[in-house]
Formats: sequence, C-alpha cells, structure tokens
Amino acid sequence: MSQENGRVAARSEMRWNGWGDPAKADDLPRAVRALLPLLLGRIRKPATPVELGDVLLAASALTPDDIVAFTVVVGKDRVDVSDEARIRHAGGRSTPDLLRRRLVRQVTPDAIVLPADHDEVAAVLSVAADRGVAVIPFGGGTSVVGALDPQRGRHHAVISLDLRRLTGLLRLDDVSGEAVLAAGTTGPDAEALLSAHGFELGHYPQSFRYATIGGFAAARSSGQNSAGHGRFDTMVTGIRVATPTGDIDLGRSPGSAAGPDLVRVFLGSEGIFGVITEVRVRIHPIPRERVLESWTFPDFASAADALRAVAQHGGGPTVIRLSDEAETAVSLAQVGRIGKALSKGAAVVTVYEGGGIVERRARASALLAAAGGVSSGEGAAEDWLDGRFDGPYLRDALLDAGVFCETLETATTWANIPTLKAAVTTALRDGLSDSGAKPYVMCHVSHIYPTGASLYFTVLASIRSDPMEVWAQVKARVNDAIIANGGTISHHHAVGRDHAPWLEQEIGETGVRILAAIKRELDPTGILNPGAVISADRTR
Amino acid sequence: MSQENGRVAARSEMRWNGWGDPAKADDLPRAVRALLPLLLGRIRKPATPVELGDVLLAASALTPDDIVAFTVVVGKDRVDVSDEARIRHAGGRSTPDLLRRRLVRQVTPDAIVLPADHDEVAAVLSVAADRGVAVIPFGGGTSVVGALDPQRGRHHAVISLDLRRLTGLLRLDDVSGEAVLAAGTTGPDAEALLSAHGFELGHYPQSFRYATIGGFAAARSSGQNSAGHGRFDTMVTGIRVATPTGDIDLGRSPGSAAGPDLVRVFLGSEGIFGVITEVRVRIHPIPRERVLESWTFPDFASAADALRAVAQHGGGPTVIRLSDEAETAVSLAQVGRIGKALSKGAAVVTVYEGGGIVERRARASALLAAAGGVSSGEGAAEDWLDGRFDGPYLRDALLDAGVFCETLETATTWANIPTLKAAVTTALRDGLSDSGAKPYVMCHVSHIYPTGASLYFTVLASIRSDPMEVWAQVKARVNDAIIANGGTISHHHAVGRDHAPWLEQEIGETGVRILAAIKRELDPTGILNPGAVISADRTR
Repeated sequence: MSQENGRVAARSEMRWNGWGDPAKADDLPRAVRALLPLLLGRIRKPATPVELGDVLLAASALTPDDIVAFTVVVGKDRVDVSDEARIRHAGGRSTPDLLRRRLVRQVTPDAIVLPADHDEVAAVLSVAADRGVAVIPFGGGTSVVGALDPQRGRHHAVISLDLRRLTGLLRLDDVSGEAVLAAGTTGPDAEALLSAHGFELGHYPQSFRYATIGGFAAARSSGQNSAGHGRFDTMVTGIRVATPTGDIDLGRSPGSAAGPDLVRVFLGSEGIFGVITEVRVRIHPIPRERVLESWTFPDFASAADALRAVAQHGGGPTVIRLSDEAETAVSLAQVGRIGKALSKGAAVVTVYEGGGIVERRARASALLAAAGGVSSGEGAAEDWLDGRFDGPYLRDALLDAGVFCETLETATTWANIPTLKAAVTTALRDGLSDSGAKPYVMCHVSHIYPTGASLYFTVLASIRSDPMEVWAQVKARVNDAIIANGGTISHHHAVGRDHAPWLEQEIGETGVRILAAIKRELDPTGILNPGAVISADRTR
Repeated sequence: MSQENGRVAARSEMRWNGWGDPAKADDLPRAVRALLPLLLGRIRKPATPVELGDVLLAASALTPDDIVAFTVVVGKDRVDVSDEARIRHAGGRSTPDLLRRRLVRQVTPDAIVLPADHDEVAAVLSVAADRGVAVIPFGGGTSVVGALDPQRGRHHAVISLDLRRLTGLLRLDDVSGEAVLAAGTTGPDAEALLSAHGFELGHYPQSFRYATIGGFAAARSSGQNSAGHGRFDTMVTGIRVATPTGDIDLGRSPGSAAGPDLVRVFLGSEGIFGVITEVRVRIHPIPRERVLESWTFPDFASAADALRAVAQHGGGPTVIRLSDEAETAVSLAQVGRIGKALSKGAAVVTVYEGGGIVERRARASALLAAAGGVSSGEGAAEDWLDGRFDGPYLRDALLDAGVFCETLETATTWANIPTLKAAVTTALRDGLSDSGAKPYVMCHVSHIYPTGASLYFTVLASIRSDPMEVWAQVKARVNDAIIANGGTISHHHAVGRDHAPWLEQEIGETGVRILAAIKRELDPTGILNPGAVISADRTR
C-alpha cells in the first residue's frame, strides 16, 4: 500500500445541546408549524433551555495524580478538565440526551483525554486500568442509544477518550480498492481524502457529517446507500484495536476460514472490549453517474412487496427507501405540498449510482411497476437527497417548539414485516396515549436484504408531563414489543445503555456470557464503557 | 415459517480409505498416466494399502459406565464401538489422512455416538463433560485440515459425535427466502429438500456430495458459485448451537446492530465452542437459465486483472474460475486434448445463472475481453461443470499409482496476488525438490471479492522417501510463506489441527486469547475437539 498520511483540518464543534452546525439551527418550517396542532392537538410550551455557562456539574473526580499520569501520555493540553469540554462530552444525541442537555444539573465525564495515535490510546488505557478510571470512547458524539453516558461503573472517575486527533487516510491500495482510515476521521473528511484519489467509501448514515469511521465500526452503522454498498459491517476488511491488555490487528484477507472472523467481535462492540484505532475499508471509484426516481404506491404493503422483489432479484438501486402513508404525508408537508397528488399512498425514493445504471434501473423499475408502483419523476427523490442529513435539525426545532420527537429502528424478515410494524406502532401509540398525548407515528424502510428489511420509526407527540419519564416507559414498551414480535433490538443504532436490558432476550444468556467472557479477558478491570451493551455486573 | 420436517434417506457411506462412492473409484485416465513421468520423473510404486479388516486399533478407552451413560441419552444402537465404525471416523480426507488410512496401525475414536436431535446433542455434551470424554463433532467427514483427528486432549477417551441423524428441512419461509436445515443434512439432501419447494441454496464446494450444512458453517466453507451467492458465511442468517454449558439460538434479523454478530463466533469455530445443530440460510428460487462460457488469456497475470475488473464492477457471473498456465495444461490433458490450441495460456471458466443473465454476461464479457481474454465457447466450461466434484477421485487414483497429490489454499488482496502466488509456489517447489522429488505445481483462482481473491494450489510429486514426513515439512514451509507474504492460513478449508500452529501469527496473541476465553466459558472442561483451531494448552 502506498503511504498516504493525509490529514484534515480540526473539526467544527457541534451545537452543544442539539444537532450540528449552530449556524444552521432554524425555526420550524411554516407548513410544519401549521400542521402540528392538527396532528398532535394542543402543543405545550416547553421550559427554557439552560445556557452552557449556567450548567452545574460536579468537580472532576480525577485525582491530581490521575491527571499527571494521563498528561505524561498525551501532553499537557490534551487532558481537558474544563466545564465546557466536560459538558460537550456528557452524552450523545438521542432525544433524552438533548432533554438532559436542557437541564441545569448535568452529569459529565471528569476529563476529556485526547490521544494522538494508536500507541497513545493504548497507553491511556493502560494508565486508566492501573488507576481505576473508567473510559468512554468518543468519536463524533452522535450516539442515540446512551453509549456515551459518562458512567464510571465501580471506578472512582470516568474520562471521555476523544479520538478526534486520530484522523487521516493512513494507507491506500488503489489496485485492491482498500483504504485504511484512522478511527477518528469523520464521514466528510474520509470522503474528501478518498476523493482526492478518485475513490468513495459511500457510507452515508444520517449522522454522516459528524460521526467517525471508528464509530461506524463500533456501532455497526448502516448508511443510506446500503442497497448498493451494504451496511458498514460489510465494508470493513480489517481493524486495529487497542485493548487494556494488548493490541490486535485483524483482516489480512478478503475472505478467510482461519477460525471465527474476529473483526466481527469488534464490530458492534461499542468500546467495551477495546478502542478501535484504525479501520480498513473497501472503497470504490467515485460514481460518475447518478439517476434519481421517485415512485408512488397505493399503500405500504404493496410497496414493501416491491422492495422485497428488488432485494431478492438483486443488482438494483444504490438507495431505496419507502415511506409509509403517515411519513409520506408529513414529509410532503415539510416542503409545502399538502394536498397535492403525491401526499397519498406510500412514496419510494430510488437512487442509482455507478456502473450498469441503465440495466439496473430497468430491472428495478420493472419490479416496482409490476408491484403497483407509479413513477413520479425526480422531484421527491431530489427533495430527499437535499435534506437527507437535516432531520436532526428539524428535531431540534420541534423540541424548541414543545414537540417531543424521537426515532427508533428494528429489522426483521420480509414475512414478519407487517406483524412487527403493527406491534411497534401500537406500542408507541398506546404508550403515548396512556400519558395523555396524541402521538403521530411514521415509519420507513431504508435498508433491504434478500431475507428482510429494517423498519425505522419517527414519533411526534406533545407530551403533557415529564417527557423523559413518559418516553422511558414508552420506549420500554416498544422494546418489549420488538422482542416479542421477532425484531432485533437495533438494526443500526446499536445497543448502548438504552437497549442493554433487552439484549439478553435477543442473544440469550449464553450470548451474554460470551460477550462477558471476552470483556473479562481483554478488559479485566472493567474500565471500558461500563454498562454499555451488557450490564457491568455480568463482567465481574 | 411453515413447519416442514422433510427427512431424507440414510446416507451412503464414503469409501473408508479414500473419496466418495466406492463404485466410482477408477484408474487414472490414460492421458494422465502418459503425462505423469514427463511431469514428475520416475514414479515410485507405493506400498499396498491395508484392507479394512486388517487394521489394528487399540481397544476402546471408554469405560462400561461411559457407554451406559451415552446409551441412556441416545439409545442402545446409537453408541457404536465396532472397529469398522471407529476406523471410518478416524479422520478426514486430506492426503495425510488418506496415507494414514493405508497403514496397519490406526488411531481412532473410542466410539461413535449418534444423537437424534438438538436435545440429544446437548445431553451427550453434558454426559461427556461430566465423565471427562473428549468429543469430535463429525458431519460429512470431509475435513482436509485435521479437524477430525481423534485427539482426546487431557481426557481419558474420545468419541466421534456423528450428526447424520440430524437431517432435514426444519422450516421454510418462502416469502423471506429462508430455510432452517438440520446440521447433519448433506449438500445433495439439502438441495433435494429445497428443490421440492422451488428453491436452491446454491452452495457447491468440491465436498458438496458428502459434506453437511453444519460442517459448511463450522468450517466457513466457500462454494463454486461464490461469485454469485457468496461464501457460506454470507448465506447464514441464523444458527442454533448446543454447548456443554447451555444452548444458543441466534439470528433473528437480516441485519442488526445488537452488539457483535455472535453468529460469526460460531462460523469457523470448528466444534471447539459447541455443536451446531441447526443453520438458518438464505435461499433463492432455482435458476431457470444457465449459460456457460470459457475464455483463454495469454497468461495468469492478464486473466487475474480481468477477474479483478469483474469483481470490482459487480453483478457478473455465478461462477468464475481461472486456472494458471500449469493447471490449464494439465486439466486439458485429463480430457485428452494435449497439444490443442487451448492448452497454452490461462483458462477462465464462467457460468451465469439466475435473473438478468444477458446483461450480466454482456457486462462481464466486455471486461474479460478488454483485459485480453478470447472467448473459447462452452467446451472447457462444460468439462469443468461435468467433473467439478470428481477431483478427489483422481487424487485416489494418483495415490494408488504412487503419485503424491495434495491441495492447499489461501487468499489475499488483488495487489498482493502475484507476490503470494510466487511465494507459495516457490515454497512448494523448493520443499519437494529438497526431498529429491520433481514437483508439478498448479494454481487456480475460484473465489473473487472486490478487494482480493483466493489462490488454490494443487501439487503433484513422486516422493522418494516417506511422503507423510516430507509433506509435513513442505506444508510447514508453505504455511510460513503464506504468513510471511500476507496471505490467510486458509480461505475455505479452515484451521483444524494442521493449521493451528500458524493461526496465532494471523490473528495475534490477543486473537488467540479471545478464542480461548470463549472456549473456557462455553466448554470449561475442554472436551470439545481438543487441539483444533487453538492449542489445547491455551484453553486451560
């Protein structure tokens, strides 16, 4: 591989108590504002959010000796105990995370430590294990499942291990189509570095603008182009990890039968076994063509059949995405098209990129039409493409307006899609109705496989009492429904702490024992991300 | 899923000291017989193989109480301590295995135990753990890496756990395209059961006729149609495993971020963590069309570039296979075409099945032609298709004629293919030449990925001294060369005991520690397949 070492500029900070670029934060679109009372009833004005400078947090629990020990590894300016840094690393970007950021008292890590490279990460873990300090690996800060909660477990303090300095294209093999990226490289930086060589990674989750390569791997992310390029799991061909008890460097071959694929032990490990420092990924030439096409179906069921046909016959779109009737109506409301022909039925967006576009589109279009779809041109697909990373900004505006908005997702086999969709919808509706709110539940399918698909739900409600308490109860009800109805507890958001109590029902007691055994071996003092994925009790 | 419970007839026994159907064993084709002295020099006549009835083996080390305990679980006729059964389960089908079967004294398991279903497997493991009896899971008996060696480890006896009674199609979901097959179902039985419903699994390794679904999973098999349907890993959507300390049932979703994918912990585990009893697989409608086309390239290098183009541009053949110059010449010798135009250069076989054949073939053909390939019609592809499961019969005939014949395989990135191919070829040639033999080394590429490909070597030699001793040294030299030159120790034959000493160099000490930790957790007394994959010392 040619040595590349491309580096990128320091990253921009996200809005501390919301999503993304503070300059982009915006009011609700007029059409949405008009629609909300119709959908949700009376909207309750929320409490005024706290300012960053007014947040109260405990003094850092690190001892002076702890701070010296970390400083010896990473250097003086790389151990940050300032209030602002601690508040900025206090959690991820789930709606409960954002609601917690609106409170005066906040729980934060005791310091942020910023290693420069793999060896410094390993050395920080070693110091933390020796001193009994918990470590929360921190990439883009976009977790929506509580993976960044600053829990210290049985330790006296907890640091946030921010990987933003581990950035760059470390190696590029343009013959084999592989690149090694430092784990802290963000989505846009990775694409910029690769595009200089004519390549694309092509992983575009909604968190793309802030999330990191290491985070994609640790959380088993799946992006909008998954129909074309697969989920992030399938893009990873190798991985380098620092653990408290040794390094591991895996993935010397595109296919292997050399024992179990241990790369897969770290994909989805969410920092509980070690810290991913480098990821080797499959890349492809930047596609020269892109074709967009929207389709309208009479209803979700017929459109889901169409997506199934496309998934099972293969070789089709790069992106395919189906909004159910509720989401189709509201998405169009956003762009001011209420009442137009397209607001009924279920909308499907398709995007084709790369080679063989004409044949692939012809094959997929024939299947979509045969299942009852009617092509509706580029319009809705273009709108989706323009706004595809902006959903979280809308959520901030909704929260500011007093509307609770959250998303959750699962996946199942095609045969079980109707059952699971109905069960989750019912759990959401009933749970929120029981609290006195009138909810609006939308769903889309955005990741398809030959054997099944994901279901992604968005719920809106004007919650009358404490939204965090109400949501905790509703979310538990939804998770129970997912498990009872054959879904996975997460298709691409991961487990974190929010889903951990349900994981054992999915993988069984033996499955949890396997995870706990690996953790005890690699992290015997249990410093890494206590309570994420599996309960800290299981690892003693 | 609809309940199916399709069952199949008792399977035919393989030739006890060779491959396959005893009725099919045959002499060497005349063309090969004529060619051998030209390639290998003088052929040394081998010793006469022993007859089954003349094999000497130690008395079973099981105690009467052990036998009673296993009998209580599986029934009276299901614990077989006969000499014949023990000899038939004494190993797999590598060339060293077959050479050992030709000796008078043989090491065998102490009994064969035949459970009926998952629960009986679990109960057998429980009895074995209680009584300190090692267990070698046995599917089709086709391992070529020593995974079936009857090693007892630190235990007083060892049984072969033959899964032939766990057979059948347990569930079929024709909407989602998923089937659950009992682990002991052979390749042909699986296809027969599925074809009754219009479906195909499409996994055709050379061992297809005898190997089992559970074996494919446990060894991370890859089949001839891998360009179209992927390696077996990618076909598996769920798995059920009995371990000495509990069951596990995994895979409720086609994609998930619910922690690490634990299915992958068992794929490639080769029976050291538990016994796979059921496998859920992705299936597809039986293809209605098949198109064959052979190509000739000036040399291996240009043909490898062509395969890379096909792999990186996607959507091409179901089968693609490239023989290097040496294999091209000898393969054609087999069908009596020596001296014809096609015997020079490097031959590529392509097979297209399923939907979109015309477009797929057009796309792949354009890439093959652009890289210097010339279409040579169906002939060579038809010959390959006809004989594709018969290679092991030829090996038996070669061994009978005194010619040592063995295969081995690895994989690497496209950029590293030339280096690895040269290094392995050199290790084989030099190793055998040092023993005084004149070797003939052939290579083919039969599994392609966007980032790289497999390399499969066949070596022929008339070895002057003890072939098992010579081969042990040569094989070690090859394994060293694979590791030193960036290859994987196995692309699809697995680790077994033969590759175990090299695995740590591939996955590192931390990798071995992970495997050992899982094994200690699931199999604390170390009864399962001692010495396979990782040294038994590592698991104490």
